[in-house]
Amino acid sequence: MSLVECSPVIILVRPQMGENIGMAARAMANFGLFDLRLVAPRDGWGEGNAVYTAAIDTAVGAHATVRAATVFETVSEAVGDLHKVFATTARERDQAKPVVSAEGFASEARVRCASKQSIGILFGPERTGLDNQEVGIADTIVSFSVNPDHSSLNLAQSVSLVSYEWFKALNGAAAPFALEFETAPAQREMLLSFFNYLDEELDDAGYFVPENKKTIMRRNLRNILHRMELMEADVRTLRGVVVALSNGRSKRVKEQAGGT
Amino acid sequence: MSLVECSPVIILVRPQMGENIGMAARAMANFGLFDLRLVAPRDGWGEGNAVYTAAIDTAVGAHATVRAATVFETVSEAVGDLHKVFATTARERDQAKPVVSAEGFASEARVRCASKQSIGILFGPERTGLDNQEVGIADTIVSFSVNPDHSSLNLAQSVSLVSYEWFKALNGAAAPFALEFETAPAQREMLLSFFNYLDEELDDAGYFVPENKKTIMRRNLRNILHRMELMEADVRTLRGVVVALSNGRSKRVKEQAGGT
Repeated sequence: MSLVECSPVIILVRPQMGENIGMAARAMANFGLFDLRLVAPRDGWGEGNAVYTAAIDTAVGAHATVRAATVFETVSEAVGDLHKVFATTARERDQAKPVVSAEGFASEARVRCASKQSIGILFGPERTGLDNQEVGIADTIVSFSVNPDHSSLNLAQSVSLVSYEWFKALNGAAAPFALEFETAPAQREMLLSFFNYLDEELDDAGYFVPENKKTIMRRNLRNILHRMELMEADVRTLRGVVVALSNGRSKRVKEQAGGT
Repeated sequence: MSLVECSPVIILVRPQMGENIGMAARAMANFGLFDLRLVAPRDGWGEGNAVYTAAIDTAVGAHATVRAATVFETVSEAVGDLHKVFATTARERDQAKPVVSAEGFASEARVRCASKQSIGILFGPERTGLDNQEVGIADTIVSFSVNPDHSSLNLAQSVSLVSYEWFKALNGAAAPFALEFETAPAQREMLLSFFNYLDEELDDAGYFVPENKKTIMRRNLRNILHRMELMEADVRTLRGVVVALSNGRSKRVKEQAGGT
């Protein structure tokens, strides 16, 4: 089992809504998790069952995860083959167990996966969450930091957050793709040459008024241009703009001169 | 506007499903966001409209957020009052814009909020995502690192992930409550006294066999007990267990002695 193949087990305890099971499976697939277990789904399970059908309908690309979900009668049976069990709870319990964040879970799961240990995480039913006896079966509590005035997290979204943190712990937090520069960032020489050309044209056009503000006006303008992080193509574009404006002005000046 | 009052604006562009709008609002409330904007909801909006009703039905504690959502005809109008606009996209675009992760968004949003800047983030329609013209209105792209084989994120879950990262950036990543020790961790003196008592009782019971393994057997046992991170109450409990076992054994030994 390589680290990438390691899949912490998502265990939904007494889930009620097929939509939440399907959405949980979809979120798992988004973030590289595939082992889904169900403990005593309230309204049954299996082909033809309404909860099962709703789960398939909402799983989008994760039908296989829903179909492969294994069903157990009790939490104890569902965690029998695991080395470490976490339990998600929204509120504090009178249980002397360590409490970690979703990020803390992911970081520990990553280390245990690398040691070929199997890990599972329990999620309670939609309305009530896990009962104390079920939390008691776990080694460690996972709890989400939420707005205390709106602390009720949707079941599938809780699964999504845990899966997201797992994927981040495994792959790093970077965005999946970076800005690709079509042309290289402009070299300083090209930039300075453009700045000097712009200075001359602006001087010519009488832009730097009053004369004693020239230094600060030049500096402000250069700072604005620097902030644009200009690429070579950008500098060529801007030079073209300045040429056009200058020539247009020269032409008008000449025409006006010729007309009077 | 204090940092806690700052609420990056969630902008759903041409959303289709009321359930996703409601679940997005719920996730926003979970993580302290309240400013929801809708651009041209596909099937309309407002009291009596089916999309609106579905949104209210799925928002759980966030009805107020759904009711207060403002509706715009275009993305440009929806972002008019914002200082910085982000766009979520699943795939690479031919647009020379910086790309950040959800975490990167949250970290930048936090800094801008502290400077009293208003920030918004665009989410595209369920099936297609934002079009290129809509992405073009944003300053920066936000993209989620996902399993490339299952990259289609549910709209409400995308909103949930961004909101979750925002809350983490604002409040830190720690779990919302820590393990509370009902009694203090046992002091070394108490532990050692217990270990010595256990040693004597085990010696008495003939546990350390063969004699030349005694040192290593004692060390293994102590290591196991150390790993339990025993608290004072735990040590008292375990001492009681050892006393009970020893006395029971003594009693049986006496009875057997008396009986023969």
